[in-house]
This record gives sequence, structure tokens and C-alpha cells, in this order.
Amino acid sequence: MQIVPVIMCGGGGTRLWPASRTSYPKPFVPLMGAQSTFTQTLERVGNRALFSAPMILASEAHRFLVAGACAEADVTDARLVLEPEARDTAAAITAAALLAQRQNPQALLLVLAADHLIRDIAAFQQTCEIGLKAAEAGAIVTFGIKPQSAHTGYGYIQADATLLAPGVNRVKAFHEKPDAATASAHVAAGLLWNSGNFLMRADSFLAEIAAFEPELLEAVTASVDQAGELWGAVRLEPDAFRRARKVSVDYAVLERSGKVGVVAASYDWSDLGTWESIWELAGKDEAGNALIGEIETLDASRNYVHSPRLLTTLMGVNDLAVVVTDDAVLISDRNRSAEVKQLVARLEQRRPKIVAEPKRGYRPWGHYETLDLGPRYQVKRIVVHQGGKLSLQKHFHRAETWTVVAGSAMVEIDGTRKLVSENESVYLPLGCVHRLENPGKVPLVLIEVQCGAYLGEDDIIRIEDVYARV
Amino acid sequence: MQIVPVIMCGGGGTRLWPASRTSYPKPFVPLMGAQSTFTQTLERVGNRALFSAPMILASEAHRFLVAGACAEADVTDARLVLEPEARDTAAAITAAALLAQRQNPQALLLVLAADHLIRDIAAFQQTCEIGLKAAEAGAIVTFGIKPQSAHTGYGYIQADATLLAPGVNRVKAFHEKPDAATASAHVAAGLLWNSGNFLMRADSFLAEIAAFEPELLEAVTASVDQAGELWGAVRLEPDAFRRARKVSVDYAVLERSGKVGVVAASYDWSDLGTWESIWELAGKDEAGNALIGEIETLDASRNYVHSPRLLTTLMGVNDLAVVVTDDAVLISDRNRSAEVKQLVARLEQRRPKIVAEPKRGYRPWGHYETLDLGPRYQVKRIVVHQGGKLSLQKHFHRAETWTVVAGSAMVEIDGTRKLVSENESVYLPLGCVHRLENPGKVPLVLIEVQCGAYLGEDDIIRIEDVYARV
Repeated sequence: MQIVPVIMCGGGGTRLWPASRTSYPKPFVPLMGAQSTFTQTLERVGNRALFSAPMILASEAHRFLVAGACAEADVTDARLVLEPEARDTAAAITAAALLAQRQNPQALLLVLAADHLIRDIAAFQQTCEIGLKAAEAGAIVTFGIKPQSAHTGYGYIQADATLLAPGVNRVKAFHEKPDAATASAHVAAGLLWNSGNFLMRADSFLAEIAAFEPELLEAVTASVDQAGELWGAVRLEPDAFRRARKVSVDYAVLERSGKVGVVAASYDWSDLGTWESIWELAGKDEAGNALIGEIETLDASRNYVHSPRLLTTLMGVNDLAVVVTDDAVLISDRNRSAEVKQLVARLEQRRPKIVAEPKRGYRPWGHYETLDLGPRYQVKRIVVHQGGKLSLQKHFHRAETWTVVAGSAMVEIDGTRKLVSENESVYLPLGCVHRLENPGKVPLVLIEVQCGAYLGEDDIIRIEDVYARV
Repeated sequence: MQIVPVIMCGGGGTRLWPASRTSYPKPFVPLMGAQSTFTQTLERVGNRALFSAPMILASEAHRFLVAGACAEADVTDARLVLEPEARDTAAAITAAALLAQRQNPQALLLVLAADHLIRDIAAFQQTCEIGLKAAEAGAIVTFGIKPQSAHTGYGYIQADATLLAPGVNRVKAFHEKPDAATASAHVAAGLLWNSGNFLMRADSFLAEIAAFEPELLEAVTASVDQAGELWGAVRLEPDAFRRARKVSVDYAVLERSGKVGVVAASYDWSDLGTWESIWELAGKDEAGNALIGEIETLDASRNYVHSPRLLTTLMGVNDLAVVVTDDAVLISDRNRSAEVKQLVARLEQRRPKIVAEPKRGYRPWGHYETLDLGPRYQVKRIVVHQGGKLSLQKHFHRAETWTVVAGSAMVEIDGTRKLVSENESVYLPLGCVHRLENPGKVPLVLIEVQCGAYLGEDDIIRIEDVYARV
């Protein structure tokens, strides 16, 4: 029997700011290597002999990010479930369990966070296989990680000697994030890190939810019953979903249920919660610096630098976390990188946009970036995926000149269609009804020069849109 | 009698990298406030009752920077003297003295570095007036600064009790940059910082040069005799100039002459030699941070941050110098910022372009900046001053689309001239002979989209150029 991976894309964009933003959260940022952890998670459950098509739970606001990442990873069978608002993990997993059960009453679910790092796919699969028997027998099998250190940022799992199945011990207790002394005691006592991943039958999970959170189950069931469809995804009905109690699956089920087991996983795992934790996992030079991008150091040690675009130089500095993006720079004591949250809270007051959005804007048809912004003009690079199609639209305050620099564009202006190819331009007078489309086999790249007195993103009247944004 | 200010624009771009570059050196960078020190120096000698039109000595490579800065400061009477190569200060000042003397045999020269900070113009003028009498009587009057600290980065001047004129003591000795203990002793003994500025008659300086450096004088005289003209500037003849010994005016004259006096100046002065010295002079917040740009700090103190474009955040860090430009970032222990030189020496090997050039390229007609660079395209913002005129040119490997976003452009393509105004575009096919000109009264801003297989700056055939670059 195949396992249904349930990939949870919750989690904000604050702890790894400025690389992550609320509209471009951690799972989608390439933090370790070229791939995002979301893409790595898809790959981890890519073996279709063991895993079925994944179910992906994400915020409605992130649906284009998810779809884009699935397309890039060539995952065409994923089932996307959109949460109209974040109601924490108990509600989300209950929705996933209900949807999976309707397809297959015996469905087995593997709940996975999209923003964790697990590099050893074989060891991960093996752990799933070890947990399978107990899960089939009705247990909720959590994945416990043998601690690498007395980490104070993770919860701990205490097993007892009872075996639910070979390799799966019954859980005696869950422990919250400890202080340093308690963490050391936990490690000495053989407790495991709670990785937040677990394996179970949908029906046995739902039975626990029915017992412990009947009102939550009722609300989520109603939301699933009345779910709509949005751009090929399941859209949970918002009013019912909002009635579900906001509670984590740990509080709602795992810490209260008698059916919880743990399998001790042997792979490296991290929740990549802070720049500090990313430095720990990254490859380092002889001086202990982890350097991502073009970096030059002079007498600098134990620093983390993430600067994919700008040449960054360090001189006589130690133990810093440095993150340089196209629009913001963070320079932090590496050991205090968990405090980024406070910094972001402050920025949210003064510079909300820099917390919310990356410089590159992601859209269902591709992405765009402002290259230059003057008092009465703006220049953008627009990239449209193969087959991508912008909405039919018009502007009241700006004219645009498009120059295609790669690929081909089908441009519609006031009802007339025209193919524009590399090294050709087209002018869009103020007020014209226009649409841009990539009919080709390679990405379309064009440079848009806007002229006008008002250049905000909100000067756009959408007349028709294939992505249901009208 | 008026004083001829001789503004020396030597000095490289290494100590304040990445804000300065070899092709965009320190005098032209706005380091303290909105103005560059070059512009501030022009302003300091702007009182035409006391000072005549300035003579500006600069490298040939920097002539457009000088001209642009003079135009911006509305200084139309400056006389620009171009050094075909850097031969240190003795040769440069000798050339200035010869040129000044030919215009006025009694000329008084005030030699000033273009990259120093003196904020109190009134006190500066007063010091010049105090020195005037002694200079007229034949002395070389140096400006000594009352030390603010036992600085080890400056040379010191020791005066004796003999007065050459009221307020001007005879110099007993010059002392090189001292170690910390010697510096303290110097300060205790009442020595003055050597600010490198001095006032003298051209003929009395030349008499000393004739006595101490006759070969240098011969070489520079020949170079001045055969000087040419380049774009309105005096261009010293290169072969003769190259024969001049490379020696500072300090070694060649000041330390050997018996005619040297010193006036104790009461104004604040700095050579802005390191980011540390700039931090010392800058305004600071309560925690001792000097923050230029949009900066957010959380528990950070005594830092210097210069980041005019990117939002920069500091968290739990102290005593750093942070400089963020459009293409490079420096993060240094503030107390070690003098070591930037070593860092730059290393970068010169690996990334010569980032040491040589700023992201914005300065040209006689204005400036340009690359906004985007792809495999077969490039986007630039081109700004042409009023009256600016690019060369008549063609390219073998690229076509260009120009969209005017501010001002008006006169565009010539294969002999046909056309006025292109805001929100209009023009296409320049590969191989066409073209020219761009700003005939208007406001700066012209245009966006250039280049398409082609090779996009290097060297694919340009100049057919005609008003700035003599053909």
C-alpha cells in the first residue's frame, strides 16, 4: 500500500528574513544549495512505489509559488489543498485526512513539513518503512531524531520500552523546547528530537480528533464538504474553516492520544529555524566560514554569509550572520540570529513592504522584477513561462513599451494579435486593452518601460484572467 | 592680491572601497553629506575677493569627473591641468607653479587636497589671511592643525619660537606618521597635525625646487612648455613629464627648505583616510552608531553604516564599519578599516573590475548604469546632461532600442535626424551609424535595451566625437 505524503507549507517568512518574506516564505527559498526545501521535500517522496501523489496544504496566497515549484520539479500529480486562512496544524491535517479518506478509506498519511532539511533520502525511506507496520495497525508514528546536541530550539520525545511494532516504541511523553540544563538532561536520558513528521492511518487520526476535538472536526468536515475549486486546487470553504479551533496537532492529538509511537530516525534533520542552524549544517572553509555567493574574507572566522548577487567582503570579523538580498541586508551576531523575529516585528511597522514581498514578484504566469524606478517611469523585467498568459488588462495612468529580449510573445492590443520576437518592440498606448502571452517553447523575457504619472501595481483593470484573479 | 587655489585630485580609490574605485576616486564620492569633498573644496575657495579661479590638477582619466563636478557646482572659471600619469606631488605642484607664474609672476598659490574635510569655511579663510603676509614675504606657509587626538595616521609639524610674520612660526621639523607612544609625546609637546595644505609664492616655491630638484624642474618645465590642449584643459606633455622624479613635495621641498613656516589652524580637519575616521566625524545616535541611508538597528552600538540604496539592518553587533554599494558590500571591524588596502589588493587579482569601476559609468556627456544583463541582452539607463552629445558611432554585434523616459533626445540614424521625446522609442538596427544628443534644457533619461551575441563596451566604432575620444 502506498503512503500519501501530506506536505505542510505553513510557516512564515520572518525567521529567515531577508531571504524569506511573508509572500515568499521559507519553504520556497533556496537556502541549502540550488533547491528550495519544498522541492527537496517533493523529491524525498518521489518514489511512487512507496509514496502516492502528494497532497500539498498551502495558504491560498502561495498557490502560484506551489504550482510553479511543482512544475519546475516535474511533479504533475500533486493535489493542492488551499487553506483560506491559517488555522494551525490540527485543522489542516484534519482536512487532509478527510480528503484522503474519501479517496481511499484505508489511506495512510505521512505528514511532512515543507521547510525541513533531510538530506539522506534512503535513510528517510527506511524510517518510513519501519513505521509502516505500526501505522497500519492504527498507531500514530512520530519520527524522533537522535540529538546531535542539547538543542534548546526543539521539542523532545520520550519513549518507553513498549514496542508497538519492531522499531516503534510507545511514546511516554512529549517535552516542550527546554532550557539548556533540561536539554542536556534530555540528551543524557536518550530522548529524541521531535521532528514534527509522522505517519498514520487517516481514519485512526480522525478517530482521535473526534474524541479530543469534536467541534474542530465538525467545522473542518463542513469546510471539506463545501470545498470549492480554484485554478485546479481544492479550496476549503472559508466560513466553516474559520470556525475550527486554532490549535497545533501536538496539543490537539499527539500529547493526548494513547496510540502514539516513535521510530528513532538515523538521518540528519534540521528545521532550519535560524541562520545559526543553517550555518551549522553548511559546508565551511578552514576558518569555519560558510560562504554562499561571491565572498572574500580577510582574517574572518566562523561567519555565515549568504549573498547570491553582490560581492561581499569580510575583514577582521567573527561569528556574524550576513544575508544580502537585492533590497535588504542583515548583519547579525550569529548566536543571536533567533532574534530576527523582533527585528522584523519592528520593520513591519516602518517598512511593511520589505517584510511582505521579495524584490521579485511571483505570479501564476511567471515573475517580474523592477529594474529601475524614476519619478515618472519604471523599468521591469518580465519573464513568462511557456504557455503563460497574463490577464487581459488596461491601465489609466501609464503607457508601456515592451522589448522582447528572449523567446516570443503573442501580444494582443485592442483586439489585434501580433507575434513579437527577440529584438522587436511594441508600444501600448495609455488605456489600450492588452494581453501578453508566451506561445513558445522557451521562457519569454521582455523589458517593459512604463511612462506615466502614476505607476502603482494597482493601476490595472483586469478584464479577463485564466488564473481567476479578475 | 588674490590667491590661486591649486586643487590636487590625486589619491586612489582603495582606502574607502567599495564607495571609491580607481576610476571614481575618493574626492568625487559624497562621503559626508550630499556633496563630495571635491565640491566642498571648490566651495571653500569660492570667495572671489580672496581667491582667484582655481587650478585643478587631475589625472587625464578623471577629466570628465572633474568637469562634471565643476559644472554641477556652477564653477565655470576653473583651469584644469591634466597629468598624463601620476608622478607624485612635487612634479604636479611644480607644473602648477610654472603655469600660474606665466599668468602672473607674483602669483600666490594655495595648495589643497581635494579629498580632505574642512567644514568651517570662515575659519579656513581666516587661516589663509593669517598666512598671507609670510607667504608674500617668500615663506612656504603650511597649515598645522591642533590635534584632537594622538592620531597615528597623520604626520606632525614641530614649530620653533621664531615668528616669520604674526601668527606664522618657523618650522623646526616635520615628523612622519608616529607609533602610538610617539604620537602621545607629539601631542603633549604641542606639535601640530600636518594637513598637507600650504600657501606660498609660485616663484619662491620654484626657487626651492631649482635648488633641491633641478632635474625635476627641467623635466616639468619641458612638459609645461610643450603642453597641449585636451577638451579645453591643459594637457602636460607626457614624455617630459614622465622624466620627473616621483617624489612627494614633503620630501622634495618642505623637509629640506629653510623657508617653511606654519600657521596653527583652529578649524576641524580630517583627511578622511579610513572608514574609522569618517565614523569619528559623522553624527551619531545615542548608541554611537553613525548611520547613512535607511538603517535599522537592534542592540547595536558604535557602528558605521553607509548604505545609500539598500535597507540595512544590524542586530547585536558592535564596532563594525559596513559599506553597501550597488555591487559590493564591505563588513569590517571598524578599528581595522585601514586594512581595506590589503583586501583591495587581493580583490585586484580576482575581481579587477570591482576595484576599478563603480556600477555607474561616468562619461563627458553624462553617465550610464547597467540595470540588467542577460545572456544575449543588456538594459542600461543613460543620462545625458543638457547639451551633451555622444560620439557618432556604430556597433557590429548589437541592435538597440531606446525609450526616452525624461527630457528630449535628438537621434541621428544613418544621416537622418529625429527628435524623440518622453514616452517615445526609436530602434537602432545592427550596424547603423548613430548619435545621441540632448538638445534640451533638462537632463535626458533613456532606457537602452541591447540585443546581440556580444555586448561588451568595446563593440563601439567611434566615427566622430566632440570629447576627442576617437
